[in-house]
Amino acid sequence: MVDTSGANGRFRRVLYIGRFNPVHLGHIEALKYIFGREGKSGEIIIGIGSTQHSHSLKNPFTAGERLLMLRRALLEYGFPLERVYVVTIPDIERNALWVSHVESYCPPFSRVYSNNSLVRRLFKERKYEVLGIPLINRKEFQGTVIRNLMLHGGSWERYVPKSVLDVIEAIHGLERIRELQETDY
Amino acid sequence: MVDTSGANGRFRRVLYIGRFNPVHLGHIEALKYIFGREGKSGEIIIGIGSTQHSHSLKNPFTAGERLLMLRRALLEYGFPLERVYVVTIPDIERNALWVSHVESYCPPFSRVYSNNSLVRRLFKERKYEVLGIPLINRKEFQGTVIRNLMLHGGSWERYVPKSVLDVIEAIHGLERIRELQETDY
Amino acid sequence: MVDTSGANGRFRRVLYIGRFNPVHLGHIEALKYIFGREGKSGEIIIGIGSTQHSHSLKNPFTAGERLLMLRRALLEYGFPLERVYVVTIPDIERNALWVSHVESYCPPFSRVYSNNSLVRRLFKERKYEVLGIPLINRKEFQGTVIRNLMLHGGSWERYVPKSVLDVIEAIHGLERIRELQETDY
Amino acid sequence: MVDTSGANGRFRRVLYIGRFNPVHLGHIEALKYIFGREGKSGEIIIGIGSTQHSHSLKNPFTAGERLLMLRRALLEYGFPLERVYVVTIPDIERNALWVSHVESYCPPFSRVYSNNSLVRRLFKERKYEVLGIPLINRKEFQGTVIRNLMLHGGSWERYVPKSVLDVIEAIHGLERIRELQETDY
Amino acid sequence: MVDTSGANGRFRRVLYIGRFNPVHLGHIEALKYIFGREGKSGEIIIGIGSTQHSHSLKNPFTAGERLLMLRRALLEYGFPLERVYVVTIPDIERNALWVSHVESYCPPFSRVYSNNSLVRRLFKERKYEVLGIPLINRKEFQGTVIRNLMLHGGSWERYVPKSVLDVIEAIHGLERIRELQETDY
Amino acid sequence: MVDTSGANGRFRRVLYIGRFNPVHLGHIEALKYIFGREGKSGEIIIGIGSTQHSHSLKNPFTAGERLLMLRRALLEYGFPLERVYVVTIPDIERNALWVSHVESYCPPFSRVYSNNSLVRRLFKERKYEVLGIPLINRKEFQGTVIRNLMLHGGSWERYVPKSVLDVIEAIHGLERIRELQETDY
Repeated sequence: MVDTSGANGRFRRVLYIGRFNPVHLGHIEALKYIFGREGKSGEIIIGIGSTQHSHSLKNPFTAGERLLMLRRALLEYGFPLERVYVVTIPDIERNALWVSHVESYCPPFSRVYSNNSLVRRLFKERKYEVLGIPLINRKEFQGTVIRNLMLHGGSWERYVPKSVLDVIEAIHGLERIRELQETDY
Repeated sequence: MVDTSGANGRFRRVLYIGRFNPVHLGHIEALKYIFGREGKSGEIIIGIGSTQHSHSLKNPFTAGERLLMLRRALLEYGFPLERVYVVTIPDIERNALWVSHVESYCPPFSRVYSNNSLVRRLFKERKYEVLGIPLINRKEFQGTVIRNLMLHGGSWERYVPKSVLDVIEAIHGLERIRELQETDY
Repeated sequence: MVDTSGANGRFRRVLYIGRFNPVHLGHIEALKYIFGREGKSGEIIIGIGSTQHSHSLKNPFTAGERLLMLRRALLEYGFPLERVYVVTIPDIERNALWVSHVESYCPPFSRVYSNNSLVRRLFKERKYEVLGIPLINRKEFQGTVIRNLMLHGGSWERYVPKSVLDVIEAIHGLERIRELQETDY
Repeated sequence: MVDTSGANGRFRRVLYIGRFNPVHLGHIEALKYIFGREGKSGEIIIGIGSTQHSHSLKNPFTAGERLLMLRRALLEYGFPLERVYVVTIPDIERNALWVSHVESYCPPFSRVYSNNSLVRRLFKERKYEVLGIPLINRKEFQGTVIRNLMLHGGSWERYVPKSVLDVIEAIHGLERIRELQETDY
Repeated sequence: MVDTSGANGRFRRVLYIGRFNPVHLGHIEALKYIFGREGKSGEIIIGIGSTQHSHSLKNPFTAGERLLMLRRALLEYGFPLERVYVVTIPDIERNALWVSHVESYCPPFSRVYSNNSLVRRLFKERKYEVLGIPLINRKEFQGTVIRNLMLHGGSWERYVPKSVLDVIEAIHGLERIRELQETDY
Repeated sequence: MVDTSGANGRFRRVLYIGRFNPVHLGHIEALKYIFGREGKSGEIIIGIGSTQHSHSLKNPFTAGERLLMLRRALLEYGFPLERVYVVTIPDIERNALWVSHVESYCPPFSRVYSNNSLVRRLFKERKYEVLGIPLINRKEFQGTVIRNLMLHGGSWERYVPKSVLDVIEAIHGLERIRELQETDY
């Protein structure tokens, strides 16, 4: 395992991974929880996953668009940028190599926050400490639900930060999701 | 071409790409120049290229290690984090797709700073504005020179920021470069 | 965007993409429509998509077999070969790069004919003019329907050009589709 | 086609492919059948397929873990190691190239044992002799059934060799399969 | 090996592969030779290789640009389009699979014209008939020589067909080659 | 790191990697040394590297051909097959992932024998014990030297096992190497 003490003697550094399609209030709550738990000397690496995908119903936004949403949301909620790293992590189709793949994109870290069973298992097999995230409003604060509302004209706006709304509007995100769904004839 | 005005009405956003193996004073000078030229409303996307490579003489450091060096250097020199995006860009072996590839990893941008002839040509063919960077101390402030000094025991330390020295020491970077060069028997 | 005027001053060049598994009368009708609409100075690039796939129920034929069917059908129906380009376009798993990918395989073009929502959206985001194709006999003139008839012994022959029938017979195409479907025990 | 006589004048060499997730008694029966049919001068290449995958419900085990199970089982049942080659064959997404891909990983062979329709078709198109394998206890001796029992706490142990049980226990295989299935919250 | 008689009872079909960066008079001479030798019932598949590359000194042009040059040259010299197939063949990094890869992009063929030692060997191992091409003016009619003249301002124009000159001018090809060579500072 | 004790309580298992193009007496000496050092309870995983390559001067043989040579040589020299695993390991272009890649193809192991500086460094960073191999006749017992002799008609035969000579002859290996080198005209 990578030596995490050396490069960062004073800090504890942790990893939190999502797809952020789009950034929503569930992500904000998770970040608040992690920052609260890690204390003032903690650094958070936010990993944006599946970044090779875009323009699909599951992953409508590009890596760069998700990065922009995340930055705007971090500023809106006053998270300390100097303690946050945002990295983009394309999928690889090799689960046995995935932890090394993630490590190669990140500054050294020693702890992982995730509720995803595959992510949890893979990091545990590599001897990382893996912690869960308490879920607030899980029924609504999740990407699938929000993308479905966007697609079918429901009121999704209340589930994403204001600054993310602005980005989605600026990149014509709603129009993109709906056109992708059009029947062909 | 991507619409760059929408997502970011108030800002001008520009791209600057390097490999950062390691981050050195030439990069710092380039950033100072670009920030100076773009003014207080300018945002800079710093693209770290060739991030699939590491542990070679040309690319000794992982994407995550280069990201860490860059963050430390940005803080050391007081660059405004809220106006900087750092993105990692693996190579693709398709020059004709490379601009789209870069765009997919970045928030929208409209101007590119680069002295590399291929980068300049590819962005120009896609109608981007491309600007050069005046070179200060080009003889010494370049990665090849610095990596060679590291390899052969020369005094390379004066060409990189203090904070980058610390990172290289913490990850045993010098030892890595020298072991990669060992003869096999 | 690629400059389309230069390489082809006298011609208008347009793109039409399908998978051609197999070539059927719906494709012939589409080509007639496009040639009619573009006039005598129009050139058509016919893109064969998903060419990395073959020997599956969705894509039974190789790129080369589809190319052969298409050539035979173009001759059978008297389309002017000197105004047609046939290109084979393997999928890439990066929607954000797909338009550049297609461009790299094609002579410059400025207009796209497609009824596929993803294709339409991706080209529109890159500022191409995108037109639809009126559908004749859509219920039967489509690949899925025809492949199903081939598989289950229905009368599919009336939906493909005579010359394509000959190719399918020569390459034992029907036998291939049916063997792929065999239960394993 | 590869010349199979030259490299191995005295032997007949045949190929048998599976995924071995995990090795079970159906595989043992198939090997007994093939060895019986090929006689004392026959050599068997056992191809482990889909080796890029692991840590999924369909392919829980790594290539190396499956290789270990297979070796242990070959020894437990007394198969002659000097007449067996075990090769690991990652998938490629190009059916038209798959036979060449398999050939490149194997010593020359002239006959294929398989009940899989795609495998059978692809080898037949390349003029290989393809034979089926009589199925014993097909209802239970198959990977899907056994993995489902492992997942849901059924008694799967009687369907795999004793030595394979030991390997699965040693690598905590049951725990892995069950954790992969955990609901996320 | 693929059955080449079936799909094309009346014709003999042969393959000729090059990179066509750019199309030059050596290619025209080769095509004349092959058409002459194959007679009026012969069909030629022209394979454009290394099509994933462009914008480099070795492969300055995209697949589509080379396709356009080739079409224009075929028309200029009056080659019969109905007996020519042009296919684009990206490299794969697996020599043992390369013949299958080429076959998958082509209508069935039985003979290969090539002077390249690797191409010749690979097709011979797959039992194809391989023939050489007499070289006329080999010293000047080759891509490397012509690209060097383009780069350094020599008179390259006499070595390429007139119609190819027009394409290169229209796509600003000379400018591209020279900019790729620019020193960085 | 992978738990190596569990799956194999009684054995110590070690890894030895080469390209085996072709198998030569240097490999035999290395295997003797490793078996001698590991004792009767040691198991050896022999990793054949760069298996995606063949038909080149550096890697003339396919994975399957090298596997055949190795098997024949193991039998000729009486190495105990039940304590040897042979695995084929294609390159990946991600040094930071390479150790995980190798692990995924191998039964668990805890020690690596190698004289290659990159291999040694990568395994050391993952906390493996890495040992060197004393070199006997290094001047002649190496692949590059032997392939050069094969190419230029020198007497290479004394540097490879007798059984490997037979395989090379059977697959027409010498002819392949020499044809690959032919000048094109």
